[in-house]
Amino acid sequence: MTMDVRKWPRKNDPDSVRARQEALGLDGEVTGIELEPFTRAQEMLTGAAVIPVSVVGPLELELGEYELREPGGEVAETGRARDSVFVPLAHTEGGLSASLHRGARAVAESGGFRTYVLADRITRASCFICSSAAEAIELARWVEGEVDAMRAWLAEQDDPSLSKHARLREVKTHVVGPMCPVLWQWTTGDAVGPNMMTRNAYVLNMGYVMERAQVKPQRSILEANMGGDKKPSFEYFQSGHGKTVLAEATLSEDAVRRVLRTKLDDLAELAWAGTHGAIASGMQSVAFTPATAIAAVFAATGQDLGMVGTSSMAHGAARRVENGLQVSIRLPGIEVATIGGGTTLPFARRWLELLGCAGDGKVYRFAQIVAAATLALEISASAAMATAGSAEFFRAHHERGGLR
Amino acid sequence: MTMDVRKWPRKNDPDSVRARQEALGLDGEVTGIELEPFTRAQEMLTGAAVIPVSVVGPLELELGEYELREPGGEVAETGRARDSVFVPLAHTEGGLSASLHRGARAVAESGGFRTYVLADRITRASCFICSSAAEAIELARWVEGEVDAMRAWLAEQDDPSLSKHARLREVKTHVVGPMCPVLWQWTTGDAVGPNMMTRNAYVLNMGYVMERAQVKPQRSILEANMGGDKKPSFEYFQSGHGKTVLAEATLSEDAVRRVLRTKLDDLAELAWAGTHGAIASGMQSVAFTPATAIAAVFAATGQDLGMVGTSSMAHGAARRVENGLQVSIRLPGIEVATIGGGTTLPFARRWLELLGCAGDGKVYRFAQIVAAATLALEISASAAMATAGSAEFFRAHHERGGLR
Amino acid sequence: MTMDVRKWPRKNDPDSVRARQEALGLDGEVTGIELEPFTRAQEMLTGAAVIPVSVVGPLELELGEYELREPGGEVAETGRARDSVFVPLAHTEGGLSASLHRGARAVAESGGFRTYVLADRITRASCFICSSAAEAIELARWVEGEVDAMRAWLAEQDDPSLSKHARLREVKTHVVGPMCPVLWQWTTGDAVGPNMMTRNAYVLNMGYVMERAQVKPQRSILEANMGGDKKPSFEYFQSGHGKTVLAEATLSEDAVRRVLRTKLDDLAELAWAGTHGAIASGMQSVAFTPATAIAAVFAATGQDLGMVGTSSMAHGAARRVENGLQVSIRLPGIEVATIGGGTTLPFARRWLELLGCAGDGKVYRFAQIVAAATLALEISASAAMATAGSAEFFRAHHERGGLR
Amino acid sequence: MTMDVRKWPRKNDPDSVRARQEALGLDGEVTGIELEPFTRAQEMLTGAAVIPVSVVGPLELELGEYELREPGGEVAETGRARDSVFVPLAHTEGGLSASLHRGARAVAESGGFRTYVLADRITRASCFICSSAAEAIELARWVEGEVDAMRAWLAEQDDPSLSKHARLREVKTHVVGPMCPVLWQWTTGDAVGPNMMTRNAYVLNMGYVMERAQVKPQRSILEANMGGDKKPSFEYFQSGHGKTVLAEATLSEDAVRRVLRTKLDDLAELAWAGTHGAIASGMQSVAFTPATAIAAVFAATGQDLGMVGTSSMAHGAARRVENGLQVSIRLPGIEVATIGGGTTLPFARRWLELLGCAGDGKVYRFAQIVAAATLALEISASAAMATAGSAEFFRAHHERGGLR
Repeated sequence: MTMDVRKWPRKNDPDSVRARQEALGLDGEVTGIELEPFTRAQEMLTGAAVIPVSVVGPLELELGEYELREPGGEVAETGRARDSVFVPLAHTEGGLSASLHRGARAVAESGGFRTYVLADRITRASCFICSSAAEAIELARWVEGEVDAMRAWLAEQDDPSLSKHARLREVKTHVVGPMCPVLWQWTTGDAVGPNMMTRNAYVLNMGYVMERAQVKPQRSILEANMGGDKKPSFEYFQSGHGKTVLAEATLSEDAVRRVLRTKLDDLAELAWAGTHGAIASGMQSVAFTPATAIAAVFAATGQDLGMVGTSSMAHGAARRVENGLQVSIRLPGIEVATIGGGTTLPFARRWLELLGCAGDGKVYRFAQIVAAATLALEISASAAMATAGSAEFFRAHHERGGLR
Repeated sequence: MTMDVRKWPRKNDPDSVRARQEALGLDGEVTGIELEPFTRAQEMLTGAAVIPVSVVGPLELELGEYELREPGGEVAETGRARDSVFVPLAHTEGGLSASLHRGARAVAESGGFRTYVLADRITRASCFICSSAAEAIELARWVEGEVDAMRAWLAEQDDPSLSKHARLREVKTHVVGPMCPVLWQWTTGDAVGPNMMTRNAYVLNMGYVMERAQVKPQRSILEANMGGDKKPSFEYFQSGHGKTVLAEATLSEDAVRRVLRTKLDDLAELAWAGTHGAIASGMQSVAFTPATAIAAVFAATGQDLGMVGTSSMAHGAARRVENGLQVSIRLPGIEVATIGGGTTLPFARRWLELLGCAGDGKVYRFAQIVAAATLALEISASAAMATAGSAEFFRAHHERGGLR
Repeated sequence: MTMDVRKWPRKNDPDSVRARQEALGLDGEVTGIELEPFTRAQEMLTGAAVIPVSVVGPLELELGEYELREPGGEVAETGRARDSVFVPLAHTEGGLSASLHRGARAVAESGGFRTYVLADRITRASCFICSSAAEAIELARWVEGEVDAMRAWLAEQDDPSLSKHARLREVKTHVVGPMCPVLWQWTTGDAVGPNMMTRNAYVLNMGYVMERAQVKPQRSILEANMGGDKKPSFEYFQSGHGKTVLAEATLSEDAVRRVLRTKLDDLAELAWAGTHGAIASGMQSVAFTPATAIAAVFAATGQDLGMVGTSSMAHGAARRVENGLQVSIRLPGIEVATIGGGTTLPFARRWLELLGCAGDGKVYRFAQIVAAATLALEISASAAMATAGSAEFFRAHHERGGLR
Repeated sequence: MTMDVRKWPRKNDPDSVRARQEALGLDGEVTGIELEPFTRAQEMLTGAAVIPVSVVGPLELELGEYELREPGGEVAETGRARDSVFVPLAHTEGGLSASLHRGARAVAESGGFRTYVLADRITRASCFICSSAAEAIELARWVEGEVDAMRAWLAEQDDPSLSKHARLREVKTHVVGPMCPVLWQWTTGDAVGPNMMTRNAYVLNMGYVMERAQVKPQRSILEANMGGDKKPSFEYFQSGHGKTVLAEATLSEDAVRRVLRTKLDDLAELAWAGTHGAIASGMQSVAFTPATAIAAVFAATGQDLGMVGTSSMAHGAARRVENGLQVSIRLPGIEVATIGGGTTLPFARRWLELLGCAGDGKVYRFAQIVAAATLALEISASAAMATAGSAEFFRAHHERGGLR
């Protein structure tokens, strides 16, 4: 193929779409799905990908209800409720759906999941390069002192490019030599919010900092890698990026034996060895396979798949308690939306509706369901590993098989 | 919904699929795609997810041709060739396709990408728990000395559960207290291989180690978190998991100015600040947004989306050279397949064919294209950030907008 | 030797000291130094260690003067002044003193060091283990809301075990499953303060939290590894432990050529390769050899040598500027004292006096001198590496040699 | 003080020493110790530092006897023997000696320590900067294939600057863009060896690589931060730097109760919370306070105090076993010497002799004693934390007090 790279049509009108399909010799299934609903989703639209979806459940949950308290933006619990949820999983990995289902059963028979939202923040980390450390430090001190004024200034701007949904909460600076990174921390409602906060941070940088600071930075960079966007980092493993959620369950001896076909002590010993294995291999997370469940829910529900890695940062823990095993997972950076982006598109919307998570006011519910589904798979996969010699895990993969 | 979790039908015969759809009240689009081709992909199949696909390009590349040298399993370059490749991207992020396209153009006008496969290994890390450190050390020494014998033993087994495609290459042990982790390192041909190596490692553990070692471990765990499966870790950021690939380009001053609308010095300064930002936030990777490109190619081509995070581990570097900027990215753990799993399914197969990457003998080509596409987006996204005040980045996201 | 471990005398009266010396057959030099001044420094005192001390300098510095602003405990700069300082270095490494001296000379000829204190905090991280995540979260919320009350309560206690020098500043919680770590953050005046804050944290835990919280933790642990004591961690690489100090210098082309015998571009290229080398090897710090200078100053001045690793966490950066190279180092966790502990002992006190750093109100000065000395050695050692083929580094170690 | 920095005398003849002492106004104790034995230890010698030394013990140990097997350089165990060792600790921290002693007693009453040397390697990581990734990869492949030839070449060189004690064992490359880091891995006998391997690596770089490689690197850097020298890194936390040693003990219920005044379950729960605390704070190590013991032994015995941080990298683990708690610590990078450097100096030599560790053939013994002493303190300090509410830890610090 020798098409000139500059001439590749970019628009999504029917002729351009067709021109691309023909140039590439594409026909049949990949061009057979109606593309019209997707034309605003991306440039150079040409066809479709289809991923099969299983539905697994129900997950028996006790979820928290939360609101963002103003003006500080703390996540406050206003109630708790029980629910049963069926979870859509888009993937092609034989055994995954059955395993997650098994974990959900074991928890259901043990009293259900309990989930909690601990925090809600997302960060855009700009960097101002100054002429010296002295100036970078002076700038940092000034920025830290201007947060209230910046918040007020943003509120009174009439700039249509600004998002009113992205609200500035805190600012953190971290001077390294002449660099002054500024971590703008936001809440973004039911959207994940990277673009919202990008627009607002840009206006803050150019309209406020560069205009008003006595120190004039040599250069303003909108994002210089401290913002945690799609890249796991300790900064956000610790402090959170998106929704920080905790899911917990107390597995009963009976459910472990009957459903998971292993023993409490075997699970506890696996947790011990697996935690030390994580440390020995330089993992930041301690978990078994959180990305598996998260990717499957994300793909079904129109989430940003580039955020699978960051949303899968996880800190799991297990402890023997009387007649059971208390297991939990802390997911500090679940980056999910129930409005905007891919969530508005046909298939994704329907799967979100199945979860009761489509639209406004649903994002904390959704984040908690993601956490519970993740823990369900952690439990079942760990149980497979924990059996003596892991015979059962072997059989599960060997006999069931799937496509691999 | 109050369906009993134990009664949820698991099979994928038409009646079971229909029963699930009806129980959940699903109809219309999500159940409208023919599911029959997907029935072996996962349990409890119920519907489909659709992600729009753009096609971007061409990427102008100089790729290496590689073969695995026996018996050691080193990746040996047998030739190099130029190619032009159009890349399918499944995602819903406004601006992504246009940006990756812009990066590809800048590189095309600068002489193209050069890509290299450095290594090919994937690891299953079992753990044997012994009664003491002394026994764990003795076991580790014994295992290290048995590798040739184990390889021969595996070859002569007549066990149909064993994969002949997964070949044991090296073994590494890492004793911590009474734990003896054993990192079985494999090549798995054109498949990613987690299930293949799981089966083989299991047989090794149970049929060889537990049978023949003079030290009898108290417990054998098939995987205890040192294997790097779907979890980023320093172990594999360093030594590789899947294909270790390097992509490089030397951006010309002219292309940077005309296509990327920035300057060489601006890009160099951004690279400097971004590298230090990565360090300051405790990122293991140094890169701007590799997961974005990788997730989009993975979703189009039937790869395992749970591997987006690990496959996006990245070490980018940039250096001013005469009249240009030399940029590169090292992706130590690209986990891709051109056979098996999701790659065999209708839509995915077609997108792989577009890339010339469907089927046997294509995996090194595919891994290199993934790396080049990733670098294309790195370049364009960095360029947007590198402009003074990042004004252009702002405009790009603000005016184009998309669904967000 | 077959002495019963339970009978080894522990006291430091002359007879006990002598009994130990005789039991061990020690005489001559190791027992020849007058031990009486050291009898309160540790149990089972038996002899002495002597480390030779060089004095190197002067370091030409512009230092900040700081005070802790009440009630928040921010470090506020109240002035800046120039000074020339000779630095004592206790060590036995041939070349170290000459190299640090050379770095100091290069900086002196380039206009001197500029140093800044950014922050001052030290942390004791207790952990309350609760019966469930729900209780851990409830406890965390409660603790966060009680900080002002706790501060007032501490102030009014009449408990002689409490330290009035250790002042509680902020509290951070970090729930993981049923664990509720509470990071008590303190300022401790001119002392490092681990024991002070230990005593105060203990009283807070037992007298306030365990008494007043509605949630009754199952267990209170005074420190469970989140406190950063003598163990490098990202938490404190980022947020600081002890004094967070930045030192900077702008090396002139002339000084680099004449004193360091290398070139600006060579230094810049080394900084680039060294930064990427740090990333590739999974270092948290980016620096060349900060622990060398820090250990030598610590050993001379009676600091806690167990804190060499944490105090050496470092983030260095270098940038070409017009006619020079701007170099800086951020040392987030310098743990130094000018009062208490080893600083009160004969030799240490005298070396602190030489620095003008003995006694009250000197700790910020001392921390800045440590940072400048560290940067001096970084510069000189880097220069040796930066020369073409590093020929000079080789010669420096080979010809000078010393004891190795 | 306004002495010209260029005129500061550097030599260690009596007149120069005296000139420095007088210029600085130093007299009395710091200049009162006979400096003559130290004149070859460092430049600009001016005085001395004295640190009090306690002697604690005996540690009851079962140590391994090891030899380096040629030609591969594996550490092979040739026997095991029991010994009782008194350990000198140079420090000024009240409570440390008593606590380490208590830990030693608890272990002695539980059957003693068992220690093992797992590996012995030290690395100098040079970096060759090439014109492109292609050249860096070609160079890497060539270097990897030349190791046997390089070893032979080194052996036949008649260069007096080369060390015959530093033996090249393996070579590892790690290409990032145009950079080709080469990790030269050595054994260095009973010395730590940084200078030895520096000299040999330099000769290899300049005399072999730069002369013979078909790819001519643009630049050769002797060390570019992948070598692990005095900077903790995951690379060496994993693979080892210096001696990789494991120490283990099985605490009996009785010793835990009577000597440590806590309970097995309390210790186990502390280990669990402390492990998760380490993870939550981004520690690479899992341990309580290894640097404390290591710094104290290093200061007494003339070790390099700049290596306290790296030598303290640690991975501890604890497990309930029948009637006891099995505790262990893996110290991957103990950098100790029994010959050369500071170990030859008066006081240090004597303390090494007390340990039976002075001179040739003693380094593995010494490394094991360091590990056992470290574990002794870990046990006692953990026990203090593990008691309900950590009341005892509080008392230990509060009542005993010392200088703080």
